[in-house]
Amino acid sequence: MAAPALIAVDWGTSALRGALLAADGTVLALHAAPRGLLSVPPGGWQAAFDAEFGAWCAAHPGLPVLLAGMVGSRQGWAEAAYAPCPAGLDDIARQLLWLQPGRLAIVPGLSCDMGGVPDVMRGEETQVFGALQALPDATAAYTLVLPGTHSKWVQVEGGRIQGFATHMTGECYALLRQQSILARMLPADDADLDAAAFDAGVAQAQQPGGLLHHVFSVRTLALFDRAGGGALASRLSGLLIGEELRAQALPPGAPVTVLASPALAPRYQRALAQCGHPVHMAPADATWQGLLAVARAAGLLAAGTLAA
Amino acid sequence: MAAPALIAVDWGTSALRGALLAADGTVLALHAAPRGLLSVPPGGWQAAFDAEFGAWCAAHPGLPVLLAGMVGSRQGWAEAAYAPCPAGLDDIARQLLWLQPGRLAIVPGLSCDMGGVPDVMRGEETQVFGALQALPDATAAYTLVLPGTHSKWVQVEGGRIQGFATHMTGECYALLRQQSILARMLPADDADLDAAAFDAGVAQAQQPGGLLHHVFSVRTLALFDRAGGGALASRLSGLLIGEELRAQALPPGAPVTVLASPALAPRYQRALAQCGHPVHMAPADATWQGLLAVARAAGLLAAGTLAA
Repeated sequence: MAAPALIAVDWGTSALRGALLAADGTVLALHAAPRGLLSVPPGGWQAAFDAEFGAWCAAHPGLPVLLAGMVGSRQGWAEAAYAPCPAGLDDIARQLLWLQPGRLAIVPGLSCDMGGVPDVMRGEETQVFGALQALPDATAAYTLVLPGTHSKWVQVEGGRIQGFATHMTGECYALLRQQSILARMLPADDADLDAAAFDAGVAQAQQPGGLLHHVFSVRTLALFDRAGGGALASRLSGLLIGEELRAQALPPGAPVTVLASPALAPRYQRALAQCGHPVHMAPADATWQGLLAVARAAGLLAAGTLAA
Repeated sequence: MAAPALIAVDWGTSALRGALLAADGTVLALHAAPRGLLSVPPGGWQAAFDAEFGAWCAAHPGLPVLLAGMVGSRQGWAEAAYAPCPAGLDDIARQLLWLQPGRLAIVPGLSCDMGGVPDVMRGEETQVFGALQALPDATAAYTLVLPGTHSKWVQVEGGRIQGFATHMTGECYALLRQQSILARMLPADDADLDAAAFDAGVAQAQQPGGLLHHVFSVRTLALFDRAGGGALASRLSGLLIGEELRAQALPPGAPVTVLASPALAPRYQRALAQCGHPVHMAPADATWQGLLAVARAAGLLAAGTLAA
């Protein structure tokens, strides 16, 4: 078995998970728990960490630990100031927030400024750097999308994240799906994707009218019995994802790299293909490779490997 | 006192209100009650009507009654089929749904078809025809907006509603304001409008990026302490109303007639002015004049006046 080189932790709002990694990227062990930020009492961070990862730390004394995600937010263990874009692995490595110097650090999120309005990410930067390791040319220009509650569209070039934009697509979908007047038209549970209805939503979103108008069609199509509930939920999904794509104003034919969960990947793949964009699917979970890349840039791997 | 000529009723989802009108538009009496659609049990419509308006009917036997609003929806007293656009007062009058022939009718809502996607209104058509009575030239071309939970943008020409579009602006504002992650950044109650923050939201909405992206700035501006909660609520309002305006793609300098409540009127006035559109403010409540115009077109006023 390869020697452990890093304890990598993705600590989010509602859950945490960790991996014991070898320097070559081999995942030696995994651990997950529903112990997200919201469940950790004030002052309880070290205890929570020890409860979840104390065994690994004891078995591999001195092994470096990197934490990514909302654990570095104002509501987390400690606030890691956002690293401004453009930012590469070297910038991230330099701005690690050390809780135990040389031993345990939080990876900072990134900020950028688009026309005087700030944007932020925490955790996605690590996934992007992880995905870059697997792309054919880590220094080329890429447009990446990380779909989700708050989708991130990321511009990468020369190995640095040049800028990005957050879209509240998943959250707005859930609000409209569950809390709006449209919810009455829709079944309580999401069925399988109705591909034709989804495609129609994506196409409609490319037309003039705007999102606030287009979503009302979920109601009117039901009023006129032109579509059933399952199809309408898929159409609403297409309208939201289609609007997210429209808003990018991507050059025609521009390729897009998708880092998505198995649930969302097919939707973004369909929508991008319909809009004429070649799609590269990246591994959805690039967090471990990203944390390993950060550790390498910070010079932690050699030390970590020696200590193990 | 002028002779009563019409009992005009606006029966909505959560409340009803009625007016006893003279043929010249004079409002002789008003009545309102929190007895909306949702509070009327199945089969209880006639009884509910009698309880609210029986006294007027008894005092003025034979007086015609017109009902507008959601009372004509599938969940209402009886479903009045939508009249298709373009539609004028004569079309509305011809398609009244008579519950008591010659005596009591429901005003149909309107439907239109924009690129294969239907849109609908119920009640707003009556307000628009009412407002037209007060405009300098009832046959000219107008763009009207009726802001609200579901804003309606209405194109009128030659005294007919040519088409319209619904925007879920008010509902999406409420969802984002109260239920989304942004709610944590905002005070529980809306304070007075912060005009500068509202204007900044309207301006931001005109920039590329799309609504799903722009609204996230409410979170990031708070994260970077660039704005307080009250200002952010106003900014969010500006973002939503600004997006509604952007989506109209109005010709530069095109005038817009606003039929808005006192709460919303100043916001639409500000946003339209900022985008370079001359604003005509119409009376917010044109329902009574609209129902009177429908009654006149249906030939009910002479008969009603004689019977009174």
